[in-house]
Amino acid sequence: LLAQGRPYAEAAAAAIQRFAPAWVLVAARGSSDNAARYAQYLFGVMNGLGVGLAVPSLISVYAAHPNLRRALVIGISQSGQSPDIVSVLAEARSQDGLTLALTNDPDSPLALAAELTMPILAGTESAVAATKTYTNELMALAMLSTSLSGHSERWQELEALPASVQLALDNSAASQAVAVARTFGHAGKFFTVGRGFNYATAFEIALKIKETSYVIAEPYSPADLLHGPIAMIGQGFPGILVAPSGQTVDELSRLLELLNQRRAEVAVISDVPKILALTPYPLPLTPGVPEWLSPIVAVVPGQLFALELALSRGIDPDSPRGLSKVTRTR
Amino acid sequence: LLAQGRPYAEAAAAAIQRFAPAWVLVAARGSSDNAARYAQYLFGVMNGLGVGLAVPSLISVYAAHPNLRRALVIGISQSGQSPDIVSVLAEARSQDGLTLALTNDPDSPLALAAELTMPILAGTESAVAATKTYTNELMALAMLSTSLSGHSERWQELEALPASVQLALDNSAASQAVAVARTFGHAGKFFTVGRGFNYATAFEIALKIKETSYVIAEPYSPADLLHGPIAMIGQGFPGILVAPSGQTVDELSRLLELLNQRRAEVAVISDVPKILALTPYPLPLTPGVPEWLSPIVAVVPGQLFALELALSRGIDPDSPRGLSKVTRTR
Repeated sequence: LLAQGRPYAEAAAAAIQRFAPAWVLVAARGSSDNAARYAQYLFGVMNGLGVGLAVPSLISVYAAHPNLRRALVIGISQSGQSPDIVSVLAEARSQDGLTLALTNDPDSPLALAAELTMPILAGTESAVAATKTYTNELMALAMLSTSLSGHSERWQELEALPASVQLALDNSAASQAVAVARTFGHAGKFFTVGRGFNYATAFEIALKIKETSYVIAEPYSPADLLHGPIAMIGQGFPGILVAPSGQTVDELSRLLELLNQRRAEVAVISDVPKILALTPYPLPLTPGVPEWLSPIVAVVPGQLFALELALSRGIDPDSPRGLSKVTRTR
Repeated sequence: LLAQGRPYAEAAAAAIQRFAPAWVLVAARGSSDNAARYAQYLFGVMNGLGVGLAVPSLISVYAAHPNLRRALVIGISQSGQSPDIVSVLAEARSQDGLTLALTNDPDSPLALAAELTMPILAGTESAVAATKTYTNELMALAMLSTSLSGHSERWQELEALPASVQLALDNSAASQAVAVARTFGHAGKFFTVGRGFNYATAFEIALKIKETSYVIAEPYSPADLLHGPIAMIGQGFPGILVAPSGQTVDELSRLLELLNQRRAEVAVISDVPKILALTPYPLPLTPGVPEWLSPIVAVVPGQLFALELALSRGIDPDSPRGLSKVTRTR
């Protein structure tokens, strides 16, 4: 994607700058909806754009016509097949909003419905649970953000990312994820926590656990958790905290201390020694990844954790029960 | 609120019509964030407005300046105290966006930060877990939508609501919620499902269960569920389906049949005999409430369920551990 995708990103950025959207609406489901969560922070912090997530059934179920004339509407879908996502793009295009499809299939209905297309160039993904296509969706969004920003030095940060992902996948990192997953092997529930750019990571790790190990896992921001659900967190409740270096580490450290007081069992994904020291279940990242790109790396230990959790339960994580690779919802 | 709040709704609507927003952004946390979910469908279907939910930490943590110049930004908070929600309204006002506070305290920081205020007039709420203030937040939003629409006949539908809520609270309805809650008394996890206008209801019932019974409960739309988490739903997994009459009942009936095939144990909140017949755990509503207002009534059996679940576990639902009435997050 880095080698071949830049012209698509720059062409989309040029069209977006001409259109000058008043706001951005992103329509997606499943893992792609978690990529959309990343876009809320990415475009908000790096590009000064206000971003909302679509509720596609507004159009697909109620046939409503929300005003999208001044919106950039982005549809994200690996397959590009889900009719509800296509319906949002079609509605926006009929109103002369600007539409962009991010998809792994540039001949899909989603790509055909949109004025602009960015292929995520991930190759065929055989496993039902998305991993490499999630990575490439985030990467494509980051490339679009960089093109929009005009800050060409950010391309160097993007070029450094594959090596960081490789480090997160290497043997020693993988063996730590395996060890933590085995510790939690019989847990009947999980919570995950992330903030800001990595709010998306908390959602995606929880989804991977649900899909591949059939265990309930609910994602939160610290604020979500404190506005009610913290009441349920008691002794032995297992969780995963996503805390790469950046603006959120101090707050997440304080939250971890509170969770430790409640005797929850919380694994931590981070490159910051101070917060890793607060858990018996560290999932260390190699330092040096800027916060705005950290979700592309920080999800990896969570994916490895979910993989091992499934294997330790005798489940084939590539073929979860009741799921197929392409999900068509209205 | 119905008796005294209409002038506030009409004044806010007139200011919104003068401003002619390109889009709407709603900032809220906890139960108020679920009221915001209702606003996405309410304003989308009834008023043709595109609505996104804010990620307040974009501003409170990252000090970002997303473009809100053409936005109507609505902050919803019972207390009006949470700094992160206030920060979104302050940022929007500094950009000359239009700001509106929905709050139970018209002297709160949120009300002071906003150009327009609609008091929800719920009186003091002593219990930590929001119930009557959630109801009034939905009601205030519905009154604003009605004022914006110019469809004066909708006020008659609003006027009929208190009687419908009273029916949902009466002895026979309450005793059915008690019976179902006792059946599920020892469950260690729940899922809830709702769609469209009642997506919010599924979220709010799940939150009430988490807050007052300390049991994990994750809310889904049917599409959310089918894009991955359905894999975890197996024999005996307890759930609550919110399916009042309207555009979503047929789809929710098909989903319930699928859940029944997987031998999940699903209670159903509905006024439709056909779908109530598909569950051993019916939570019937009295017919006659239009779909767009049904969330104000359909949440009640879920609130009664959560109440009984807490009591049956020996928990005081008015004072959940680790929570206070006013939550201040950044």
